[in-house]
Amino acid sequence: METEIRTLFWDRDAVVLIDQRALPLEERHVRCTGYQEVIAAIRDLTVRGAPAIGVAAAMGIALGVRGLADLPSKALREAFDGICGEFSAARPTARNLFWAVERMRRCFDQTPPSEDIRKALIAEAIRIGEEDIAINRRIGQHGQALLPDGARILTHCNAGALATAGYGTALGVVRAAREAGKKIHVYVDETRPVLQGARLTAWELVREGIPCTLITDNMAGSLMQQGKVDAVLVGADRIAANGDTANKIGTYALAVLARAHGIPFYTAAPRSTIDAALPDGGAIPIEERNSAEVTGIGGVRTAPEGIAVWNPAFDVTPHPWIAAIITEAGVIRPPFREGIEQVLSSSSPASA
Amino acid sequence: METEIRTLFWDRDAVVLIDQRALPLEERHVRCTGYQEVIAAIRDLTVRGAPAIGVAAAMGIALGVRGLADLPSKALREAFDGICGEFSAARPTARNLFWAVERMRRCFDQTPPSEDIRKALIAEAIRIGEEDIAINRRIGQHGQALLPDGARILTHCNAGALATAGYGTALGVVRAAREAGKKIHVYVDETRPVLQGARLTAWELVREGIPCTLITDNMAGSLMQQGKVDAVLVGADRIAANGDTANKIGTYALAVLARAHGIPFYTAAPRSTIDAALPDGGAIPIEERNSAEVTGIGGVRTAPEGIAVWNPAFDVTPHPWIAAIITEAGVIRPPFREGIEQVLSSSSPASA
Repeated sequence: METEIRTLFWDRDAVVLIDQRALPLEERHVRCTGYQEVIAAIRDLTVRGAPAIGVAAAMGIALGVRGLADLPSKALREAFDGICGEFSAARPTARNLFWAVERMRRCFDQTPPSEDIRKALIAEAIRIGEEDIAINRRIGQHGQALLPDGARILTHCNAGALATAGYGTALGVVRAAREAGKKIHVYVDETRPVLQGARLTAWELVREGIPCTLITDNMAGSLMQQGKVDAVLVGADRIAANGDTANKIGTYALAVLARAHGIPFYTAAPRSTIDAALPDGGAIPIEERNSAEVTGIGGVRTAPEGIAVWNPAFDVTPHPWIAAIITEAGVIRPPFREGIEQVLSSSSPASA
Repeated sequence: METEIRTLFWDRDAVVLIDQRALPLEERHVRCTGYQEVIAAIRDLTVRGAPAIGVAAAMGIALGVRGLADLPSKALREAFDGICGEFSAARPTARNLFWAVERMRRCFDQTPPSEDIRKALIAEAIRIGEEDIAINRRIGQHGQALLPDGARILTHCNAGALATAGYGTALGVVRAAREAGKKIHVYVDETRPVLQGARLTAWELVREGIPCTLITDNMAGSLMQQGKVDAVLVGADRIAANGDTANKIGTYALAVLARAHGIPFYTAAPRSTIDAALPDGGAIPIEERNSAEVTGIGGVRTAPEGIAVWNPAFDVTPHPWIAAIITEAGVIRPPFREGIEQVLSSSSPASA
């Protein structure tokens, strides 16, 4: 079962993104021909999801080098560094963004002067996108073994094809389980305030005929209470060295509720989401977004004027609440610090 | 500090309701001159909140008797029973609806044939409304003693002046604490799908200058994790004899989260919310509402066509998760069965 969802791709000197703000009502693509359009698309959530942001940034950096390749090497270096810095400042939480920028820097550094730097950076960005899909398929293979036939999965936000170059992390596990012949039902948290669940996850699942039910976020506890959830399965935006994990706001509450009901809580993410330099989740920067996301929906104002708002885009789930972290190099179980070290040093190739 | 919010009142042969569907964008009242308009208003959430539904039903029944008073007594009885039956079928969960219908039946039964039955029923309905406000003030007095000065309260849905004839249950406790000179900050869950928190609680609090912050429902766990909540304080739609409590969907999850963070979880409700005939919460009927409430907001569609939805309007919080139930006859602590028996047999007058 191949997903036909084309989240983002390189096309003749442009980065093409499915417009995730327009889904599910309209399926349209945005064509970015300048790197600043890609930065704007990351900021305004045209493209979102930690792995997809990483791929978009890599392609955006490749785009930015156009017209610079003929500069003297020092000026080229400065311009390139400036572009990388602009991408790094686009959003603060997702680790994959910084990882992708670092990888493009490395490509820049390692390309011999004799080669066409622009071609090398474009090739690297395309490679990052292709690898992301291959990585997700491996995450799916490792993760699907955790799901029994007939499993009812609760997911939050969108960790699907739309959050990645394709196939998805958490939803990649669901896809792999179905490819293995298992029946899976997905409960979809709508995921206020931006509704990535209702708008994106529901759209992906309905489009592929994967059985699913949409709920509001505050129904998840009651659903668990009624014995209707066999596992919680989410993506991640940044994972610290001890396993503490930042993900979409509301994830932490699900982890606490899952524990109270004896339900395993799984995180699915590529190794590029792991920030080994952070000892724990306390230092993960949490983006606070515009209050208008909370005071209204789709342009409709729902709260009174003058109301104060708290709008963190992410929260941190401490590692003791997590049953396993599913990566392309295998499933990490507690103790996470050791397991994370192991998968980071593993040579498991993405495309194997 | 008197609240000026006029949720519902009797006015010259009409029941006047603030239109809670139009808030917070527009403050308008609906004038119901026929009892079926009141039933429609209960069904479509023009009026909502367990105590307010009870008062609206009482006034609606009084309205329904207009034009019937001259019928022969048997025909009058049948017509009256029919009207009561229609009100009882308006919504299934809130106990106060059935309680108010029973009280109007009793008034009907106890009014001597020599008296004007219509006047008697109107007087009883107005009395139920006045008593409700007095009851809420007593709930406030009992409850405010539980809140320390400076307390940061998390509330869900609207258990305020708009959910009652006035003053509110959970928000009545907040009002009473402020009248007692305490500083209180209220965190308001927006309360999807119908957004009673964002639309109604936020409106009440902003209007009265009570410090508050709006959050989406899935932020509550993270807020507790950050140590920003001193108590959870909610209303109730039905309380079983053992203390199990039905309230707006999402309440159960808050109770579990509160326990996990060592935060007390309080329910504030009049005795008319208690259903002593139900041994536990398992038998409380839970209304499931239209899927369109979940697939969109304010007329804006947010989910793809063809998505299945689960939309229970309430959930049941088992009594072990509840620290105390605050009634007009005092604060009930565990063991709840004994405490509930006690307050139900207490003669504590509402207007004392």
